[in-house]
Amino acid sequence: MAERAAWRVTAYRIIFGHDTPAGRGFDVALIVAILVSVVVVVVESVPAVRSRYGAALMTIEWGFTILFTIEYALRLACVRYPGRYATSFFGVIDLASILPTYLGLIFPATHYLLVIRILRVLRVFRILKLVEYVGEADVLMVAIRESRRKILVFIATVLTIAVILGAVVYVIESGTPGFQSIPSSIYWTIVTITTVGYGDIAPQTPLGQGMASVIMLLGYALVAVPTGIVTVELSRVRGSPGGGATCRACGATGHDPDARFCKRCGGQVAVAAVGAASPPIP
Amino acid sequence: MAERAAWRVTAYRIIFGHDTPAGRGFDVALIVAILVSVVVVVVESVPAVRSRYGAALMTIEWGFTILFTIEYALRLACVRYPGRYATSFFGVIDLASILPTYLGLIFPATHYLLVIRILRVLRVFRILKLVEYVGEADVLMVAIRESRRKILVFIATVLTIAVILGAVVYVIESGTPGFQSIPSSIYWTIVTITTVGYGDIAPQTPLGQGMASVIMLLGYALVAVPTGIVTVELSRVRGSPGGGATCRACGATGHDPDARFCKRCGGQVAVAAVGAASPPIP
Amino acid sequence: MAERAAWRVTAYRIIFGHDTPAGRGFDVALIVAILVSVVVVVVESVPAVRSRYGAALMTIEWGFTILFTIEYALRLACVRYPGRYATSFFGVIDLASILPTYLGLIFPATHYLLVIRILRVLRVFRILKLVEYVGEADVLMVAIRESRRKILVFIATVLTIAVILGAVVYVIESGTPGFQSIPSSIYWTIVTITTVGYGDIAPQTPLGQGMASVIMLLGYALVAVPTGIVTVELSRVRGSPGGGATCRACGATGHDPDARFCKRCGGQVAVAAVGAASPPIP
Amino acid sequence: MAERAAWRVTAYRIIFGHDTPAGRGFDVALIVAILVSVVVVVVESVPAVRSRYGAALMTIEWGFTILFTIEYALRLACVRYPGRYATSFFGVIDLASILPTYLGLIFPATHYLLVIRILRVLRVFRILKLVEYVGEADVLMVAIRESRRKILVFIATVLTIAVILGAVVYVIESGTPGFQSIPSSIYWTIVTITTVGYGDIAPQTPLGQGMASVIMLLGYALVAVPTGIVTVELSRVRGSPGGGATCRACGATGHDPDARFCKRCGGQVAVAAVGAASPPIP
Repeated sequence: MAERAAWRVTAYRIIFGHDTPAGRGFDVALIVAILVSVVVVVVESVPAVRSRYGAALMTIEWGFTILFTIEYALRLACVRYPGRYATSFFGVIDLASILPTYLGLIFPATHYLLVIRILRVLRVFRILKLVEYVGEADVLMVAIRESRRKILVFIATVLTIAVILGAVVYVIESGTPGFQSIPSSIYWTIVTITTVGYGDIAPQTPLGQGMASVIMLLGYALVAVPTGIVTVELSRVRGSPGGGATCRACGATGHDPDARFCKRCGGQVAVAAVGAASPPIP
Repeated sequence: MAERAAWRVTAYRIIFGHDTPAGRGFDVALIVAILVSVVVVVVESVPAVRSRYGAALMTIEWGFTILFTIEYALRLACVRYPGRYATSFFGVIDLASILPTYLGLIFPATHYLLVIRILRVLRVFRILKLVEYVGEADVLMVAIRESRRKILVFIATVLTIAVILGAVVYVIESGTPGFQSIPSSIYWTIVTITTVGYGDIAPQTPLGQGMASVIMLLGYALVAVPTGIVTVELSRVRGSPGGGATCRACGATGHDPDARFCKRCGGQVAVAAVGAASPPIP
Repeated sequence: MAERAAWRVTAYRIIFGHDTPAGRGFDVALIVAILVSVVVVVVESVPAVRSRYGAALMTIEWGFTILFTIEYALRLACVRYPGRYATSFFGVIDLASILPTYLGLIFPATHYLLVIRILRVLRVFRILKLVEYVGEADVLMVAIRESRRKILVFIATVLTIAVILGAVVYVIESGTPGFQSIPSSIYWTIVTITTVGYGDIAPQTPLGQGMASVIMLLGYALVAVPTGIVTVELSRVRGSPGGGATCRACGATGHDPDARFCKRCGGQVAVAAVGAASPPIP
Repeated sequence: MAERAAWRVTAYRIIFGHDTPAGRGFDVALIVAILVSVVVVVVESVPAVRSRYGAALMTIEWGFTILFTIEYALRLACVRYPGRYATSFFGVIDLASILPTYLGLIFPATHYLLVIRILRVLRVFRILKLVEYVGEADVLMVAIRESRRKILVFIATVLTIAVILGAVVYVIESGTPGFQSIPSSIYWTIVTITTVGYGDIAPQTPLGQGMASVIMLLGYALVAVPTGIVTVELSRVRGSPGGGATCRACGATGHDPDARFCKRCGGQVAVAAVGAASPPIP
């Protein structure tokens, strides 16, 4: 039993750890395998490639799926709380990365092909694991997480505006192709307000073009709002731990760069060099 | 009379209040009703749906209109100053949400159909009520309100540039379809300067394409201005004396919203309510 | 002579001043006249309108031109240094606003019509006067002026990138229509890097589409640079005179909001209330 | 030997230096020559121009190539460490600016024409030298260099999202032209998420249009991230200890670049050279 624990600890260090040479080697091998398997799926979707190398690519895909299945089983086996891992963000993604191929096996009927494909495609989620490996992403993550609620309010506001203006444009451009229903007009409004502007649907009447101009200027000015939100949050996250200092009395962090006393307990804070957060360029 | 006052107070608490379980239940039911009624209007505009379920959707729409009419009457009845409510922002929107359906009833003539539709569509404004329910929107509101005048100056400047450049492009691209008048050319300039770029109108001559390149680069750089404005205002609102506090000992301001002690002298800071800067919506 | 001076002073107060009721009335009348005359030029360019109301609009245009000519003469007459006014920014614009109509008179030949039009169109510059009336524009002006050199470096960099990538795309997409020369390809690169994306020219080969993806992502990320520049400058301009303070010893301004001593002479600075720069919302 | 050293020092001063009148004259002449040679390459690519002036432009191009070759040889001869120069950023660009024309000579076969052109086009990189001459670019360079890693994480995230959403859209819009493979769909997703929106590929099904709306809103909100990153870094570089100074008395940092006295204690601050943060380009 103790032996098995040792085996599990070793497996855990290799699969979950990033400190040992074996762990780092495993990580790199996994990234390469993930990238190659994604490329295989993407390339196989090209009609010309599928007709020639379809069988070979299918075999490679199966190879990767079996490898990732073994990896998933090992992760479940060596982790302390398998249930907690299985329901964690990456546990779900790990499972979602291998399921589509197996589901493609259960429904072999030709007319289910499309359904099988939609499930297979989800395997691409596996690439999301890459985020785990980049440390610099943390600051961005924190800033985005802090901005989350404001961004949601903003997107809800934009959607509300899109629904109202889409309905107005539907009435104005009633005869023009592409504005034959409110959903189509809302789609066009979103295309316009986000400044994407496909041009597959475009207003023809002077009133519609005037309306479109207003929506464009609105979208052009509104993009300032999410930018402002993220900038302010990023500025707070960035200037918190490095530019500021740690309280000597209570250990609180996140002080302003010019703080001399702790904002929590009033004790003196250790002065840290400004810019310490960013390591010198090698 | 006292009994009626009690009835009014209860109705007021349920309809306007968000604190009691009944008030919160009413709010949720209202949001659901608003969303469903908007979906009904949007879906009914799709030709294929209207030809099949037009009558049923019309009935549902009438049901919602009657419900919202009763609600509007109750709001007028239970509020202390009905006139002030009726002329407030949400009072006008509440009325504008029910009027279009009734107006569709008064003018039943076929050739007025289009006019009726344009009024009906305005009912979508009802969705604007949703903003009331999200607290996080306050900070954005304050920042946008503070930026309002600068944003207006900016949009006026962009429009001025669009008029001048539109006229210049009209002369340069005189023969190209889509540039047959200055209004069309101004429309194209706005499409270009806001980086929307439909492509339904595009310059053909080398001079026109050069001009277009200048307008694009202008629009690409100009978007920085509203973003800068909102970011600076948002930064002020976020770290302002409203969210933060003033030190009781040395009078220093600019503390973090979560600061309890002054970062300069270590004295206690006056705690201000977060969001106190934004007045409650009446 | 003294009488004439009095006449000139009165005219100066009305035309250049904004303090007296007469001055303010003149300003409003001028804005209305400018806007109407611009609308006349714009509307007259629409073929359907010109064929019906061309003569009437031409007469109105001449009326405005004569009025603005008298105004220009009065400005020259009542100002202390006419030469300085004539060579100032608004002096040049005032002249450029009336010249095109007269130039249209000197060359009446039919085949010069196009040239006449290009000159007439320049009259639209008159609308630029509007900027003069909005006080809030100053902060934006200062921030943009401060950012000017960095923005120019940025636009030069974008143009350099556009030239190089345009040449590369020209070689990759050699056969595709729209990429038949390097100037066309540079135009397309600018359309893409500024995220305008007309779609009149679009890459067809996989390599070209990959190249386009790189250019798009570049443009998507690069827009951050002018925004960052303007935001930082705006933040400095905004927080300088109001949030900071004036030195009691040397009168220097532009101190940081938390400055206690003058950065020029080391003397104490007067503490000003944060937010004093923005007047309370009425 | 001493005479040759003197000759080398003089050549070095003229070619690499910017302080003497001769050095400045050489710089200006070089910029003009670079710009003219780029214009020649660009203009020669226009079919109508090539058929008429092809031979003359070819001769001019050869003249510039020989001049730049002599310049490159002189740079190698007069610099102290020729190897270090040859492998430096601008050394490689200097070589890449002259090689394409010579390579066009070695392979004269008609069917290699395309290959020759692709190499010639690289000569445009020569224009990159222009960056060297603008001092204001330094601050931007430092801010971008500091943001580099975060921007890379951001672009990797956008690409990951583009791969996943591209695969999902491929399944949804399976029959629509332009979505016939996952690479095409990824290309379309990048076109949409960067808000470029060519419109050459556009979703037709309601589900695909809904998906497109989500991608657009995502791209519209995501652009905030690189902007936030660059703004924060630019704000740090602008007000950093490099541009500003440290107080000799109390050690406070974060002074304005033009500060002479400490804003905290009034003591003198150590004057640091502006731009010292960015190392001189070798």
